[in-house]
Amino acid sequence: MKLEELSKSELKIRYDELNSKYEEYKSQSLSLNMARGKPGSDQLALSDGILDPALLGNFKASDGTEVRNYGVLDGIPECKAIFADILSVKPENIIVFGNASLTIMYDYVSQCMVFGAGDGPWAGKKIKFLCPVPGYDRHFTILEHFGIEMINVPMNENGPDMDLIDELVKDESVKGVFCVPMYSNPTGITYSDETVRRFASLKPAAKDFRVIWDNAYCVHHVKDNHDSLLNIFEAAEEYGTEDFFIEVTSTSKISYPGAGVSALAASSANIAAIKSRMNAQTIGYDKINQLRHAAFFKDIDGINAHMKKHAEILKPKFECVIEAFEKNLAGKGIAEWTDPNGGYFISLNVMNGCAKRVASLCREAGVTLTGAGATFPYGKDPDDSNIRIAPTFPSLDELKKAVDILCLCVEIAAIEKITA
Amino acid sequence: MKLEELSKSELKIRYDELNSKYEEYKSQSLSLNMARGKPGSDQLALSDGILDPALLGNFKASDGTEVRNYGVLDGIPECKAIFADILSVKPENIIVFGNASLTIMYDYVSQCMVFGAGDGPWAGKKIKFLCPVPGYDRHFTILEHFGIEMINVPMNENGPDMDLIDELVKDESVKGVFCVPMYSNPTGITYSDETVRRFASLKPAAKDFRVIWDNAYCVHHVKDNHDSLLNIFEAAEEYGTEDFFIEVTSTSKISYPGAGVSALAASSANIAAIKSRMNAQTIGYDKINQLRHAAFFKDIDGINAHMKKHAEILKPKFECVIEAFEKNLAGKGIAEWTDPNGGYFISLNVMNGCAKRVASLCREAGVTLTGAGATFPYGKDPDDSNIRIAPTFPSLDELKKAVDILCLCVEIAAIEKITA
Repeated sequence: MKLEELSKSELKIRYDELNSKYEEYKSQSLSLNMARGKPGSDQLALSDGILDPALLGNFKASDGTEVRNYGVLDGIPECKAIFADILSVKPENIIVFGNASLTIMYDYVSQCMVFGAGDGPWAGKKIKFLCPVPGYDRHFTILEHFGIEMINVPMNENGPDMDLIDELVKDESVKGVFCVPMYSNPTGITYSDETVRRFASLKPAAKDFRVIWDNAYCVHHVKDNHDSLLNIFEAAEEYGTEDFFIEVTSTSKISYPGAGVSALAASSANIAAIKSRMNAQTIGYDKINQLRHAAFFKDIDGINAHMKKHAEILKPKFECVIEAFEKNLAGKGIAEWTDPNGGYFISLNVMNGCAKRVASLCREAGVTLTGAGATFPYGKDPDDSNIRIAPTFPSLDELKKAVDILCLCVEIAAIEKITA
Repeated sequence: MKLEELSKSELKIRYDELNSKYEEYKSQSLSLNMARGKPGSDQLALSDGILDPALLGNFKASDGTEVRNYGVLDGIPECKAIFADILSVKPENIIVFGNASLTIMYDYVSQCMVFGAGDGPWAGKKIKFLCPVPGYDRHFTILEHFGIEMINVPMNENGPDMDLIDELVKDESVKGVFCVPMYSNPTGITYSDETVRRFASLKPAAKDFRVIWDNAYCVHHVKDNHDSLLNIFEAAEEYGTEDFFIEVTSTSKISYPGAGVSALAASSANIAAIKSRMNAQTIGYDKINQLRHAAFFKDIDGINAHMKKHAEILKPKFECVIEAFEKNLAGKGIAEWTDPNGGYFISLNVMNGCAKRVASLCREAGVTLTGAGATFPYGKDPDDSNIRIAPTFPSLDELKKAVDILCLCVEIAAIEKITA
């Protein structure tokens, strides 16, 4: 039954009931964290075999390169090959970088500020980017850092509102879009084929339009019936728009976050431009770590087999959250949530105006959530409704408690709103 | 006897003699490389113990941080402590980065282009940097990449010509200096205490003046009677100029080039500014590699003991070059060279107008040198005289041959010039 249909006295009874449970949790001085998309320690242990020095053999890459010494700008061949398979592009369209795709994206935007992307430097000009919302806070941080104006574009179950994007890109100062096309952060949805094709067929006014296609969760399936994403470069080829797309990914959530390997895929023209910049920036990234990864995973089958092990650990955690939501929140008209097939997040929309209150109630009870608003540019959720749930880091026992508390807080905040 | 004092016929005899030796070498189809400051394979092997996973224990840094997961912007404490000892600064003035100090320097200049260093962005303005010459080509590449005008400042045996620098920094568009203060690349000299103090007491017109103090060879002694460098931050404290200096170093030539750890030391104000930028750029650098390094080297004594092993390998190589120069070139009035106590290079000045010819003769005989001119901004050595010798990569046997050929070429080119 919807809470709004309850009488004032029924709501009061319910509120007291919830509050006494909440106070009980509070007295336990818990410390539970669902804030960031961090793998749990059992997930980290899956990759410990990667540290075996025997994997490095005689320290030679497949082309004979000594991985302990200087050299190789764009990655050793076996590492490029794996990323090429993961992203379904040719190895020559791959550059292997350091430990973080975030740094690749930052550097790409930074380069656009100083040198531009074919139509003059962005620095000193009014530059706007489109941001599908809710989205990834660290994308917004990069854009805000560079003073790039962010424009919200609502997400639906097929991806961003493409009609709106079609309209917005007619403005020449709109230079790009930041997006997570597969198992989107935080909604967990994957862009439909139609959405990908509409990205490929965009007709922006800006000649130097760039879509940062952050394919962070490209092999990160949780359920057996997993999503698949249309290859953006294949779609773009039809329209001759390959230069619009800068795709990135990493092994952060395959091997180790912070000690993995990242990669970029792009058109030949963009690869050449980026390599020319890298030539001033580095002598080469960590090839020992590249060889370690290539030797441990071997190929795309090795990656997929490894991701199944992650999925076995993650599946019960995702189910735990969804089951708790179903049990405690369904039918009450106070929350909606996504039930993704992969990725690292579940997106929860509580009643408008309640997200900050829910996060604050949770915090008081020892449950840390991603800050309410963080999934929107400038930290401003216009509806104060979205909460990103990161179920991966806590143990299953901790998670059960944390979600239980979260559900209490969602309902408490809703009753407070209804009765205000 | 000086070649210039020989008669034409004596020179002809000498030239034919040299040429027949040269042709003999040429017929051997050699492939010897003295181009880059790369450690040899025996040096690489010194660090292979660093790959032992046992060093990583339970994957916890000294402050309890799980090194396999996300987090820690500025480095794990034990790694910061080692760099703090290496550079004689406080750990809170250290940031540990990724695998390359080159990238730190590039990023620093890039940040200055977009945001500046306290007096507005550099992009779009006329910006000049002073470049002690001969110097490090990759510094010049960064500056050229960003369109920063480079001004040559001659090096002497105590460092750059500080009288000239005092004059040049009166120009407000002169925003900084790039230098290698210890075992300078390529001369191998170390800045005298007086030179360091004059850097510390500079009175530049630019408020946002920055000296990139690339202390790449800070512990890289070759001879027992090694140099020491005055601490720039201690000197700067006297004059209140700490903010002018950005010091970088790395373990590239301590552990592995390309798979080491780099670090920056700076004033508290600069550290805060850099961390604020890093907050948008990364979640953190590779902490597994940081812990590996800290556990392997333990402390500054461990570093110094390890560098002694490098020195044992490098000392005969440096001696081999110097001995060959003494034997083949001394007293002929055709070449001068440095005899450094550490670092990776020996600087050779041949007769004006001969460096390119020497490099080309060497190349034809299978000996690769750093491109003539590379030690000057824009690749333009005004005297066409300087050649950087990198004696570390070839084996001692190869090196002997390579230097022998080099000496032949220096004398051949000199006779060609004298008799032209």
